[in-house]
Amino acid sequence: MSKRVFLREAVVSDEFDVIVIGAGPAGENVAGRAVRGGLSAAVVEENLAGGECSYWACVPSKALLRPVDLAGEVGRVPGMSLGPIDAAAVLARRDEAVSHMDDAGQVEWITGLPAEFVRGRGRLDGPKRVRVSLPDGSERLLTARHAVVLATGSRAVVPPVPGLAEAEPWTSREVTAAKAVPGRLAVIGGGVVACEMAQAMHGLGAAETTVLVRGGGLLERMEPFAGQLVAESFAASGITVRTGVEVVRVERPERGGPVTVHLSEGPPVEADELLVATGRRPATAGVGLESVGLPVGKPVQVDDSMRATGVEDGWLYAVGDVNGRDLITHMGKYQARVCGDVIAARARGEKDDRPGLRDVAGGYGAPQVVFTDPQVCAVGRTEAQARSEGFNVRAVEYDLGSVTGAYLLGDGYRGRAKAVVDEDRKVLLGVTFAGPGAAELLHAATIAVTAEVPLERLWHAVPSFPTVSEVWLRLLETYGL
Amino acid sequence: MSKRVFLREAVVSDEFDVIVIGAGPAGENVAGRAVRGGLSAAVVEENLAGGECSYWACVPSKALLRPVDLAGEVGRVPGMSLGPIDAAAVLARRDEAVSHMDDAGQVEWITGLPAEFVRGRGRLDGPKRVRVSLPDGSERLLTARHAVVLATGSRAVVPPVPGLAEAEPWTSREVTAAKAVPGRLAVIGGGVVACEMAQAMHGLGAAETTVLVRGGGLLERMEPFAGQLVAESFAASGITVRTGVEVVRVERPERGGPVTVHLSEGPPVEADELLVATGRRPATAGVGLESVGLPVGKPVQVDDSMRATGVEDGWLYAVGDVNGRDLITHMGKYQARVCGDVIAARARGEKDDRPGLRDVAGGYGAPQVVFTDPQVCAVGRTEAQARSEGFNVRAVEYDLGSVTGAYLLGDGYRGRAKAVVDEDRKVLLGVTFAGPGAAELLHAATIAVTAEVPLERLWHAVPSFPTVSEVWLRLLETYGL
Repeated sequence: MSKRVFLREAVVSDEFDVIVIGAGPAGENVAGRAVRGGLSAAVVEENLAGGECSYWACVPSKALLRPVDLAGEVGRVPGMSLGPIDAAAVLARRDEAVSHMDDAGQVEWITGLPAEFVRGRGRLDGPKRVRVSLPDGSERLLTARHAVVLATGSRAVVPPVPGLAEAEPWTSREVTAAKAVPGRLAVIGGGVVACEMAQAMHGLGAAETTVLVRGGGLLERMEPFAGQLVAESFAASGITVRTGVEVVRVERPERGGPVTVHLSEGPPVEADELLVATGRRPATAGVGLESVGLPVGKPVQVDDSMRATGVEDGWLYAVGDVNGRDLITHMGKYQARVCGDVIAARARGEKDDRPGLRDVAGGYGAPQVVFTDPQVCAVGRTEAQARSEGFNVRAVEYDLGSVTGAYLLGDGYRGRAKAVVDEDRKVLLGVTFAGPGAAELLHAATIAVTAEVPLERLWHAVPSFPTVSEVWLRLLETYGL
Repeated sequence: MSKRVFLREAVVSDEFDVIVIGAGPAGENVAGRAVRGGLSAAVVEENLAGGECSYWACVPSKALLRPVDLAGEVGRVPGMSLGPIDAAAVLARRDEAVSHMDDAGQVEWITGLPAEFVRGRGRLDGPKRVRVSLPDGSERLLTARHAVVLATGSRAVVPPVPGLAEAEPWTSREVTAAKAVPGRLAVIGGGVVACEMAQAMHGLGAAETTVLVRGGGLLERMEPFAGQLVAESFAASGITVRTGVEVVRVERPERGGPVTVHLSEGPPVEADELLVATGRRPATAGVGLESVGLPVGKPVQVDDSMRATGVEDGWLYAVGDVNGRDLITHMGKYQARVCGDVIAARARGEKDDRPGLRDVAGGYGAPQVVFTDPQVCAVGRTEAQARSEGFNVRAVEYDLGSVTGAYLLGDGYRGRAKAVVDEDRKVLLGVTFAGPGAAELLHAATIAVTAEVPLERLWHAVPSFPTVSEVWLRLLETYGL
């Protein structure tokens, strides 16, 4: 205590109610909510304020995918003809979408909260202390009156395959920031990043795109038809998918030159560029977890108020990817709202168990959208998940292409929808949609699942004709309503 | 009674549990639900099974609008270039969408229920009796054991303007069935049909399209920004809108030749074709209402189970446009599900007040989508409606173009969202979205409004990043959550 008092007297501005390490979407939102709750806040960021999402993930990937997606839509509408996509123009718009890697706008947002933005590498240095290595090589010590929040995100994993790291492959960072589109692209992985970026690069000119999947198919965490529909679309557009293959060795004799990917079976793949998209790991290294007695190399465990478990006095919180709960931007932001609000409530000595002060959504199963063509989106549990958790499940499916509103979007619209019902409570446990333009269908499902709207009530929520949303009626009819 | 017994003995097949007059979407669905409930049914239709919606309204209009809508989307994405729309190909796909005006598929659906399809003009002929004028000039008398359902729809209104009827203007029927696109089109009206068809025809080649509106703007039953955004889009694309004008006289010297529309102020409009889109009137003429003591020329009043009021023994029902409740296809279909189910329940002597056996949705305010660019959709009450009904209202708005997911759809995305909150109960009374591709946003709002999901619960329904649906978060934040 004496030290804190001393610091307060010496350098008042270096004490804050809340210190947030990491200015990605989650960190920004913690600060925003805490300040809104009457607290002072500092946000420490060594790279760009706005984080991975704004510069190297969600935003640039969607900027790259949009014309490819739209070209797919146009291709299904008779009477329309599209010229070739100008990849340079698309990359230029991507650059604009990431503000040309300039975070001035984000910093302005933070300082306007108002909060203090500290550019530097922050790490925990014992209870409520954050030591920041500044760009000029000096250090700054910040202390928190109430809370420190870790929002350091995650890093792409590069698996320990011989020659892979040496080949300097692209991860999600490099592919979304690409300055040019390679003619031949090999992709290791079959998840969201792999599928989205294979399609984006292929659509923008990577004529030979090969996706290398260890498992049996694409998007294996989702309902099986999702990956199947994406695989069919890939096949139709000329993207090669090789399933059940392990990457055993990678060769790239010249830096930036052609790369050869040797596989557990079949011929090796030659490509001009290699993307590794095999998952992400919470960024816990170098953030000083050891100084507060927490293990490094694991997600920071938190309770539903985002408070780290096992820390005396409960002053440490963690939001976003670093806590390992739901590695998706919008869930990190959601956790951040919970976290900023709960810190403010606790600082004010208020009740801290109001409904908004807990991560409720995560327990239902995070919503997620895959921006491929077809788009895939899901919320809640898959049928398999729900069954493995012991729910009394009934699942219904419907062919999205049979919905009039989908037919009207284009010839040969292919898609599918599935609802997983808790038969005991007659509420939805999960919903999945796959089909062109399906992304915006998801929020209706997210509301239905999260608010546990009874099927009997959903029956009266009339979908408009002729929208694709009419699939809601078809699912409920198929269920037997 | 003796007559019915006589008929049953003489022509057994002419007695049914339920007789439906009109095989539009509403009529079809009544039959479908009644048969599912164990009843026998006959469906009488003088024109095409499938009704107005399938051949002369929703379906062909959306087939015509789709390429125009998509061209708008493509125009906002740098790096994409679109050739001119081939109107002939679009009209051909429209023809396919309306099954080339062949209702064989719909008839097959009805007979497959199974139900009897009777081609002819049906009209009430006293209690539980329907007299059908068959195409060969003969008549057939059908009797119903339990119920007769009117599902005769509505007709476009042509206002009594001198010279207008003589000019043989297009209504929604003719414009959606157009064989060619006129170079110059004048449109009377500023509602949904007027806006949609002005944009479709203009996008397909009607270079001079002029919309003539009596009131102050477009889409005046919706939130004011909706019509404003559509008007701005019309102005930008070269569609002329003249507000505050009455059509006083129409001249068309030669059938099918140029038409001159004289207005209450300003110069007259010359056009090659004239579309009248000034509303619809329930089709109650010639259906025999007088034979059962009901007034002609007014909607058939029904209770929430779709049973006509003022008819002894309660055997008459009316669904869809003819009852004047909500003149929208999906609401007619919804009423039809209620109606078919309640008739079956009553016929079986079961409880007839279960939740699914009443029109609940209508009371919340029907969802509706306008497929213009920008698309406009709304459910529930506008702020003005809610205030006029005495609710304790607070409304919040948000600029849809400021949502990252919208920005990523294209340059210069313009749109707006509004939520009308019941402050006493903290639930949504109404939601409106206007913006490109907004149609599929609506169902989330329809669920939230119809299921009265508390705002506090909506807060935990996390919209996915970066979708346009993230506007839900922005609206709730703007509200103060």
